[in-house]
Amino acid sequence: MTNTETYAVPTGFGSPELIGLLNREMRKRWSAVAERTDQMAGYALLAPGKMLRPMLLLTSADATGGDSAQLLPAALAVEYLHVATLVHDDIIDDDELRRGRPTVHTHYGMPDALVTGDFLILNMTSTLLECTAVQPAAVLEAARVLSTAGSDVCRGQVREAGMAGDLNCPVGDYQEMVALKTGALFRGACRAGAILGGATAEHADAVTRYAEHLGVGFQIFDDLLPYLADSPTTGKPATSDVANLRPTFPVLVGYQAAGDGDRRRFAEALSGRMPVADSHRLMRELLISTGALDLSRARAAEEIAWARESIADLPGTAAVEQMLAIADLSIDRNR
Amino acid sequence: MTNTETYAVPTGFGSPELIGLLNREMRKRWSAVAERTDQMAGYALLAPGKMLRPMLLLTSADATGGDSAQLLPAALAVEYLHVATLVHDDIIDDDELRRGRPTVHTHYGMPDALVTGDFLILNMTSTLLECTAVQPAAVLEAARVLSTAGSDVCRGQVREAGMAGDLNCPVGDYQEMVALKTGALFRGACRAGAILGGATAEHADAVTRYAEHLGVGFQIFDDLLPYLADSPTTGKPATSDVANLRPTFPVLVGYQAAGDGDRRRFAEALSGRMPVADSHRLMRELLISTGALDLSRARAAEEIAWARESIADLPGTAAVEQMLAIADLSIDRNR
Repeated sequence: MTNTETYAVPTGFGSPELIGLLNREMRKRWSAVAERTDQMAGYALLAPGKMLRPMLLLTSADATGGDSAQLLPAALAVEYLHVATLVHDDIIDDDELRRGRPTVHTHYGMPDALVTGDFLILNMTSTLLECTAVQPAAVLEAARVLSTAGSDVCRGQVREAGMAGDLNCPVGDYQEMVALKTGALFRGACRAGAILGGATAEHADAVTRYAEHLGVGFQIFDDLLPYLADSPTTGKPATSDVANLRPTFPVLVGYQAAGDGDRRRFAEALSGRMPVADSHRLMRELLISTGALDLSRARAAEEIAWARESIADLPGTAAVEQMLAIADLSIDRNR
Repeated sequence: MTNTETYAVPTGFGSPELIGLLNREMRKRWSAVAERTDQMAGYALLAPGKMLRPMLLLTSADATGGDSAQLLPAALAVEYLHVATLVHDDIIDDDELRRGRPTVHTHYGMPDALVTGDFLILNMTSTLLECTAVQPAAVLEAARVLSTAGSDVCRGQVREAGMAGDLNCPVGDYQEMVALKTGALFRGACRAGAILGGATAEHADAVTRYAEHLGVGFQIFDDLLPYLADSPTTGKPATSDVANLRPTFPVLVGYQAAGDGDRRRFAEALSGRMPVADSHRLMRELLISTGALDLSRARAAEEIAWARESIADLPGTAAVEQMLAIADLSIDRNR
């Protein structure tokens, strides 16, 4: 998997070959399972996702001089953790659509969906431990990195909930929250891949920096998506952020740039008192008129440039190309 | 921790010294934490619990010839997993009281409680990995055992939910469910303790069998508790099982022993159509009149006898005494 052929021109996030391999392995494990809990996990896992975090783990191993061929279980493990957070997030936000399909709790009910998320988190650890070709000490370190990343994601989710409706939230606090909620798992995936691949500390740090910048850029662009595209493209309702009163990056930036009149309109759009479709439309107008959309896009692009810079000197050139392409795509996508 | 002095006459589940040590360590880690997520985890963890699963892990290490002194993080880890399932169970059942205090979602709201459970599961892995004095291969195996146990608990929870209101559920299905929902974590705790302590395969299997029988006996007695004691003693509402339409062990046994008239009354008590206090009172009468309470108690005692037998030949005699006392207490308690 380290040779250049597998890193073909990317469509989506990563080489079609690697994504195909990940999807086949996922189907093999989850498409014909007997127990209801496993079936629900399969329902969540086999929805067409970007496989971004598994790709980051595999390419980070290759980019730092390792061989990702042994690390497929670890790549699945990080996706399990990611999907678990989606399943639980959807319960919290009561979102009905994810990846173009009914969410797990919409399909199976809240109690079973809650347990399915737990099940996926627990499968993260047991699946990671299938990497038996790797030194036990490296597997332990990767498990530590990924479980700590998961804990940080939780801290980020709680901080995000605490910010609901707060237009005066400092942008710095928002960025700290994003570094936890989104950045931590990107960071965990890249760092775990490097560690499992036997990278030097310097190379592991390089992919870690890449991941941190990628995480921020990715999340800012994610915050923009609802105002760039409609539900059928993103796979989830464009109105979810206003419905949940999220002061996202463009919203905070727009609010700070706005005069008193517009600030009142921002507050109205994020009050939860208007029909969500109207809130969303009003918010979109405000983000355009205050220049917040353009400003946020530029800010995301800056992070992506830093992400690119972080990995310039790594030895696995084909994989580095792949990671550069992933960085570019993270701010040029419609879902 | 392997000498006999620390295994004093038990009050509660295990030696007061070991329980004191566990409680002090728990407080040290969780009583002065800054982040809201950690505070919520602390709220859940520092409620006065039995510390049964951590005790099982530590005593299993000592009983099989190991030294539990190095395994405090692993003991906490198994309690994190257990408490995570309680936090999530309470959301699912919407129970308001646990260990005599408001449940996490009652105190902090559902969204944050849900994330707190995830956080605790993730802390299980990272905390277990603090056992650096143990061989990495043994830590990996213990992590596998505990995460697999957690997955089994999830499968058990989903099966339990599927049985709601079903008085015709075969007792065998119920026992399989209990082996997953309750037994798996007892099994995981004992087996992980043995593995981390460097036990032989034979000795690890002995504590595993002990745990399996203890789990069934413990759960059957747990099912009896609401009909033996009132809420202030058990720390959770005695009416929870009927409110959630759980066909528990005594209920299934009583229903099978009952004639047509009593069967109709069983169905009424578990229909969710009566006020829960009335359902609970009717169920209690039925369980007494059908002999189900006595029968269940005898069945639990049988499992406990088998649990005792399983560990008779282990080398760590003081710890074995402790495990025998735990087994006896599991069917002679009021919470």
